[in-house]
Amino acid sequence: MKLASLKHGRDGRLVVVSRDLSRCIAVPQIAATMQAALDDWANVVIHLRDVSDALNAGTLADAQPFDPADCAAPLPRAYQWVDGSAYLNHVELVRKARGAEMPPSFYTDPLMYQGGSDDMLGARDPITIRDEAWGTDLEAEVAVITDDVPIGVTPVQAASHIRLVMLVNDVSLRNLIPNELAKGFGFVLSKPASAFSPVAVTPDELEGHWHDNRLHLPLRTWINDIWLGEPNAGEEMTFSHADLIAHLARTRKLGAGSIVGSGTISNKDRSRGSCCLAEVRMIETIDDGAPTTPFLKAGDTVKIDMWDAKGQSIFGSIEQTVRLS
Amino acid sequence: MKLASLKHGRDGRLVVVSRDLSRCIAVPQIAATMQAALDDWANVVIHLRDVSDALNAGTLADAQPFDPADCAAPLPRAYQWVDGSAYLNHVELVRKARGAEMPPSFYTDPLMYQGGSDDMLGARDPITIRDEAWGTDLEAEVAVITDDVPIGVTPVQAASHIRLVMLVNDVSLRNLIPNELAKGFGFVLSKPASAFSPVAVTPDELEGHWHDNRLHLPLRTWINDIWLGEPNAGEEMTFSHADLIAHLARTRKLGAGSIVGSGTISNKDRSRGSCCLAEVRMIETIDDGAPTTPFLKAGDTVKIDMWDAKGQSIFGSIEQTVRLS
Repeated sequence: MKLASLKHGRDGRLVVVSRDLSRCIAVPQIAATMQAALDDWANVVIHLRDVSDALNAGTLADAQPFDPADCAAPLPRAYQWVDGSAYLNHVELVRKARGAEMPPSFYTDPLMYQGGSDDMLGARDPITIRDEAWGTDLEAEVAVITDDVPIGVTPVQAASHIRLVMLVNDVSLRNLIPNELAKGFGFVLSKPASAFSPVAVTPDELEGHWHDNRLHLPLRTWINDIWLGEPNAGEEMTFSHADLIAHLARTRKLGAGSIVGSGTISNKDRSRGSCCLAEVRMIETIDDGAPTTPFLKAGDTVKIDMWDAKGQSIFGSIEQTVRLS
Repeated sequence: MKLASLKHGRDGRLVVVSRDLSRCIAVPQIAATMQAALDDWANVVIHLRDVSDALNAGTLADAQPFDPADCAAPLPRAYQWVDGSAYLNHVELVRKARGAEMPPSFYTDPLMYQGGSDDMLGARDPITIRDEAWGTDLEAEVAVITDDVPIGVTPVQAASHIRLVMLVNDVSLRNLIPNELAKGFGFVLSKPASAFSPVAVTPDELEGHWHDNRLHLPLRTWINDIWLGEPNAGEEMTFSHADLIAHLARTRKLGAGSIVGSGTISNKDRSRGSCCLAEVRMIETIDDGAPTTPFLKAGDTVKIDMWDAKGQSIFGSIEQTVRLS
């Protein structure tokens, strides 16, 4: 099942989207918003699936064309956004780029940060920055949305609370990060609003590609329509999505609609490219002594997509243009 | 004007509360929830004030008795909770307790962290912990709630977006903090759910005590009914509430209902006591070589309150008991 939030007020209008992303239908009789669906997931999911089945069978005469440009983020504002760093190849490279060491505990104790969730961008919304010198970067990731997660869940229990999967562009202001992290309290200024794929999908929709609580497909990125990378999101994910949720729930319960990100997808095989410019610049530094690829400038475009085995987009693509405010 | 959210579903039932905290009345014809009121503040505030005036004049026959035990947090779940560290005396002492240095930039560049906001505790809800060894501590603070704040506001502009003021207990798991902050990405496990005062009040309700975007009254704390402190929340606040909002909005706009905390209130005058146990323990270490005051244990109680010039509670008191889950 695929779900989206069309732009409408602060919380969007929940729609069920066809598997091929061509059509959609609002479901106010079931749930008016994505948050309302997540708040009562156990009761509404059966009804949403009935609509989804009819939509995919082509038997819903009142279905509308689906346009990703009409989409807000699946949760246009959320009660929680926490991002992990589950791909340790990325963590190693970014740490090297910052001149920071990689503690051995990072292989057993997940690194996560609490992000802002009051303003989530739709897939085609611009990345609005006030200063190009801040060093704007993309971070292409996979994220999951949970329902209510009790305190102290195990990873096995956490897995049963993963209700939806989507893509994220975790926009990062690289040149603000060193000073901010040096203050010791994590990211505040250096992580502005993130953007999300047009649709969020239930794990069963991912067919055989979702196993071990990881999504085993390449995440594809382009800058200004030039290929940047396609690392596989599954095989080198040290901590699974369930591991990340269980870590987060160690000291507190999580409310329905909590979004938990994977961190930037990254593979050791350099031929697969990268999902962020910081990684490209680090590799340039290692190879050539200095980075040559610039961070994003006004007018630059970012595209993030994931395809199924037939080459069809699963979530719709994130396509953003950088804009100076 | 004083507002509260009575426990009701996930988002509470908005009530207007009388100045003396004795009576309240639901206002579904204006806004069903606190978030709904904040989403449309410019339009609803006049109507809420009319109800407040009638309630305080004693002319509302259908007003109900107000009981803080019925209260959820003013925002039972919020789209953003960011906490500052505006009292540098506290920051200095806590840093010393952790063996960390105080960078000079801390006097010009506010220290803030992004907190979890999916689960906000009511004023009489228990502090639920899984392990006493985590070192549970209170942090008594003042917080403000904003409406929509544009990106790049000045402190003067930010001040006009402060809609409500309340008290917070920013519960902290002290013994988890050193390891978590050493990872470099801020607090995740070491800051479980925070608790808020029964009512949130508009700044004008604070009379002459609210000026320079600071609340100039003592914040009073007790542990197991034993006095812990009453530092003044105004005079030694290095960064005002407006300064904190402007800092946060430097790279992004803030959504309506963003909660911005002051950080633990702290004064240099030791006779005023403390608003957290970490500070008590640090002073013991300086004076006696080692801390003797333990962190909170199951069954311990915390009380946080602020009185007006007549000794009347302004926000109602936060009164919590520590409970093992």
